[in-house]
Amino acid sequence: MNQPPAIDLFEALSTSRSLRRLKPDPIPDDIIRQLIEAGTKAPSGSNQQNWRFLAVTDPEKRAALAEIYRKGADLIGLRNYGEEGSPGGGGDERAQRLIAESVRYLIDHIQDPPLLLLLCAVPLPAPEPPPGYQPPLNVVRFGERSEPASILFAVQNIMLACRAFELGTCPTTLHVLHEDEVKDLLGIPEEVKTFVMMPIGYPTDRFGPVRRYPVEDVTFRDGWGNVWPG
Amino acid sequence: MNQPPAIDLFEALSTSRSLRRLKPDPIPDDIIRQLIEAGTKAPSGSNQQNWRFLAVTDPEKRAALAEIYRKGADLIGLRNYGEEGSPGGGGDERAQRLIAESVRYLIDHIQDPPLLLLLCAVPLPAPEPPPGYQPPLNVVRFGERSEPASILFAVQNIMLACRAFELGTCPTTLHVLHEDEVKDLLGIPEEVKTFVMMPIGYPTDRFGPVRRYPVEDVTFRDGWGNVWPG
Repeated sequence: MNQPPAIDLFEALSTSRSLRRLKPDPIPDDIIRQLIEAGTKAPSGSNQQNWRFLAVTDPEKRAALAEIYRKGADLIGLRNYGEEGSPGGGGDERAQRLIAESVRYLIDHIQDPPLLLLLCAVPLPAPEPPPGYQPPLNVVRFGERSEPASILFAVQNIMLACRAFELGTCPTTLHVLHEDEVKDLLGIPEEVKTFVMMPIGYPTDRFGPVRRYPVEDVTFRDGWGNVWPG
Repeated sequence: MNQPPAIDLFEALSTSRSLRRLKPDPIPDDIIRQLIEAGTKAPSGSNQQNWRFLAVTDPEKRAALAEIYRKGADLIGLRNYGEEGSPGGGGDERAQRLIAESVRYLIDHIQDPPLLLLLCAVPLPAPEPPPGYQPPLNVVRFGERSEPASILFAVQNIMLACRAFELGTCPTTLHVLHEDEVKDLLGIPEEVKTFVMMPIGYPTDRFGPVRRYPVEDVTFRDGWGNVWPG
């Protein structure tokens, strides 16, 4: 078994930047398994673990997924992402340009990395509601907020485990725009949701450090607008 | 400054279990700052970082938040969580009972830990849609899936940083059931969403190891139902 190289938590946290230029070199199955195992260590509501990991390694399936992904990118105008009039990223101009170039590269090459990992959610068992029952709006909103909170923490664990194995990745969601086609391709049942697709491969770019706004710019204390530490 | 104790990434990943019995002992501000900084290292869509961290440390505000939280727990029947007929957790019977006891403890005592950390999302700048424009359903769904994916990865980084500082926490969402009251209490603007509330404090229970289903039980290869490694 390939042991993960020892890496300090805070070193991993501060150097796990999204890497989108990924080589086709294969990833050993036992490493893929360890990435997924890291994901399963995340918390989920009541520890229900209703996540399912769908590891797409077959080249034809990856090529078909890539086409669906590119259709999504076209639909919301991401193929010319970062050019004038299209959505820009955070940070300064140079940082935005670099992100835009790398996003466009990923869109064109997402079939290349040897693994497209889909994070899915199966519905939790629940009592059948009475006929005609309409849940109040706040209960609907609660479901909309709490369901992703049972799936998405696993993504970050996988991202950090990728960092340890020196694998590049970047959580993406464009496939959701044509989720029905993704389900047809992979035989995913209708009631299952596909939250995130992670292309994973050995990167051509380097890891970290990540660049972020300072804590003081994004943190309040005891009330909105009271700048940290108050 | 309190340096985080060195801890290996995989040790942190596999011992960061949710801890819900938390002491009132204060957390130094510089540690709170380092927890939030760990959160900001997470990826977000286009690195837009539209998260905001609202650190509630004031005892009266915490008590008021706790009342709102308990109203949510009452609304969906969580005060008797784990008793017959109420939703149960994953795992075997003993594990379910322990989780249920700990959830009920948290509901009763959530005002005790010195920090209730709210993770919020401010809306991203977007062009004004033409009057009367109704986005297609798949674009709406894309927004619903991609928005939490720009906020929730930060939660897992904070959870892992808590582990390093030997602080207990557990991501919770019950406050969303009465989000309007949370916003009134803390002056949060209407357009801001409050995704997760993390009670954070020094735990009375011990860390890890977390117990999860094996990878083979939750992973497919190249198609739904093809058990890993295929």
